[in-house]
Amino acid sequence: MSKKHNFSAGPCILPQEVFEKSAQAILDFNGIGLSLLEISHRSKDFVAVMDEARAIVKRLMNLGDDYEVLYLGGGASLQFAMVPYNLMKVGGKAAYLDTGTWAAGAIKEAKKVGTVDVVGSSKEENYSFIPKDYKVGSEYDYFHCTSNNTIYGTQMKSFPEVDTLMVCDMSSDIFSRQLDFSKFDLIYAGAQKNMGPAGVTLVVIKKEILGKTGRENMFSILDYSQHIAKESMYNTPPVFPVYASLLTLQHLENNGGIAGAEARNEAKAKLLYDEIDSNPLFETFCVKEDRSLMNVSFKITDENKKEEFDNAWKAAGISGLNGHRSLVGYRASLYNALPIESVHVLVDVMKSFNKN
Amino acid sequence: MSKKHNFSAGPCILPQEVFEKSAQAILDFNGIGLSLLEISHRSKDFVAVMDEARAIVKRLMNLGDDYEVLYLGGGASLQFAMVPYNLMKVGGKAAYLDTGTWAAGAIKEAKKVGTVDVVGSSKEENYSFIPKDYKVGSEYDYFHCTSNNTIYGTQMKSFPEVDTLMVCDMSSDIFSRQLDFSKFDLIYAGAQKNMGPAGVTLVVIKKEILGKTGRENMFSILDYSQHIAKESMYNTPPVFPVYASLLTLQHLENNGGIAGAEARNEAKAKLLYDEIDSNPLFETFCVKEDRSLMNVSFKITDENKKEEFDNAWKAAGISGLNGHRSLVGYRASLYNALPIESVHVLVDVMKSFNKN
Repeated sequence: MSKKHNFSAGPCILPQEVFEKSAQAILDFNGIGLSLLEISHRSKDFVAVMDEARAIVKRLMNLGDDYEVLYLGGGASLQFAMVPYNLMKVGGKAAYLDTGTWAAGAIKEAKKVGTVDVVGSSKEENYSFIPKDYKVGSEYDYFHCTSNNTIYGTQMKSFPEVDTLMVCDMSSDIFSRQLDFSKFDLIYAGAQKNMGPAGVTLVVIKKEILGKTGRENMFSILDYSQHIAKESMYNTPPVFPVYASLLTLQHLENNGGIAGAEARNEAKAKLLYDEIDSNPLFETFCVKEDRSLMNVSFKITDENKKEEFDNAWKAAGISGLNGHRSLVGYRASLYNALPIESVHVLVDVMKSFNKN
Repeated sequence: MSKKHNFSAGPCILPQEVFEKSAQAILDFNGIGLSLLEISHRSKDFVAVMDEARAIVKRLMNLGDDYEVLYLGGGASLQFAMVPYNLMKVGGKAAYLDTGTWAAGAIKEAKKVGTVDVVGSSKEENYSFIPKDYKVGSEYDYFHCTSNNTIYGTQMKSFPEVDTLMVCDMSSDIFSRQLDFSKFDLIYAGAQKNMGPAGVTLVVIKKEILGKTGRENMFSILDYSQHIAKESMYNTPPVFPVYASLLTLQHLENNGGIAGAEARNEAKAKLLYDEIDSNPLFETFCVKEDRSLMNVSFKITDENKKEEFDNAWKAAGISGLNGHRSLVGYRASLYNALPIESVHVLVDVMKSFNKN
């Protein structure tokens, strides 16, 4: 079967080169006569993978030696627990921005550690915008936000100046746009969007922020310091997901880095949003100024045309366009690896409904 | 380069069929025109993988509906924390058997939750045997043991009758031998030995034991009940490691199940231990009665022959034979997927040193 136009929200499309190289590594890794899946994580071949996977993140993000990079198992949902466990002082409190389902999930877990103040929320408006009128003072141990909201198609275009640590869940837009990453004290991201397959989570952390909570007897596996001390090999890492993430980041570095990806992502998003804005059959769920470059969530204005539209995009070889079950409608995810040709195919289908 | 004889202690050799099928799935999964790495974990194709991966474990272990099967991220080290967090009552205590480095790691983490009594330990004898003279009464919330100790080459040949819940870390010998699995209330195993690649951990749990600790505000991601409620999809699972684990277990089921693996493992271990016992140049680290069928840890009795022996096995295409850094010496891991032909190659090398 021929390759589809994959708009899946995640796990999602990765560069074809990543599929080919990672499949080859499973058959014979680096020509050593062994599969990537059957070698020790302490072997020099895999230690080199982990070292480079950590180093390339700092190069791409332009971060210095005050930051550490970890590849952890357990998903971004484990970070919902690890962030307050490692950063919220005993008896302390944190400020959270509530911009969607995943932000709310992070808030729920942080409340199990201490006091959480939700300094802004768009929940009452079905998360259709990013709250902006809030202040975060030094009374908070940290501020937590979610940079992009896959379900609602919103994205933080700028980040607030806060008088405390800045923590961001960048799972769904990491490596998609240029940011001053040094403004963040901790960044985490489930790999399964722009940086690799499911099964590994990136954590980028400013070393100096750790060890200040007064929390004793921390579980080792939930303690960032332990992972840092063991250079992200505290225990057996998720070998294959780490390797495929490295391949993805190497592909990014070889194709203009984050700046190159950003330019491509802006072009793809403009193409699709322009069609939505000019075609009366479609409209987005969110306000214009907060539209995501990664996930274009939209609905059809005439339900009578839905079946015909669904048949048309499926016939065009498009996959993964259905919206999240909580919003319904459609969601076109335009992650780094999605070629603009796929967006053209979708827009052409949409245009044909405008002419009708 | 030709295929090596891979005695690695883990991640370790898997069936060649698993490498081939999983590599193919990365290029095109199930002929759907998409890579396994780029599809949603909620897609029907992957939900079918997860459902079957959970079901096959119960078939192989002959367990009924009172058990649930989970595939979790984070490694067995995360289970060192989750087990006491989910099973040790507030103010309660647990009994642990200390048979090696990993057992000691589990003990260290459990002490962060409550009282731990080490009911038996061979630490003073460098873990060269399995303690057997202990009793575990109903005053304990559970008993925890490690069925096989990769570093020292010891294995529990039988399990005690205890008056409490029975919890076992089977990371390094799961699916290698027939056991009455219904005697265990919770079994966990990092996949990266007999059941798949690194990056996923199997948890088999008797449902009725959960929810009895009085612990409130548990982190969702560390709560087995939450994972069970979501059928092992509480968050995005490690898609590729789960799929490769399913392939490994299907290969096992198609080759005589656990009984078939056990017979092959016994033959391989006998071949190697017979050589060690008859060859004055080699001896095991542990007592005979507790020798592992999975990991044969041994040393050379004449250090002057070491270099020559090392050159000989390397020349024979053998890989991964060096012992753990804490014991040095050698370790031949005979996991399910290692063919007996590889053991013959090793034994032939050893024999050549006996004649010399």
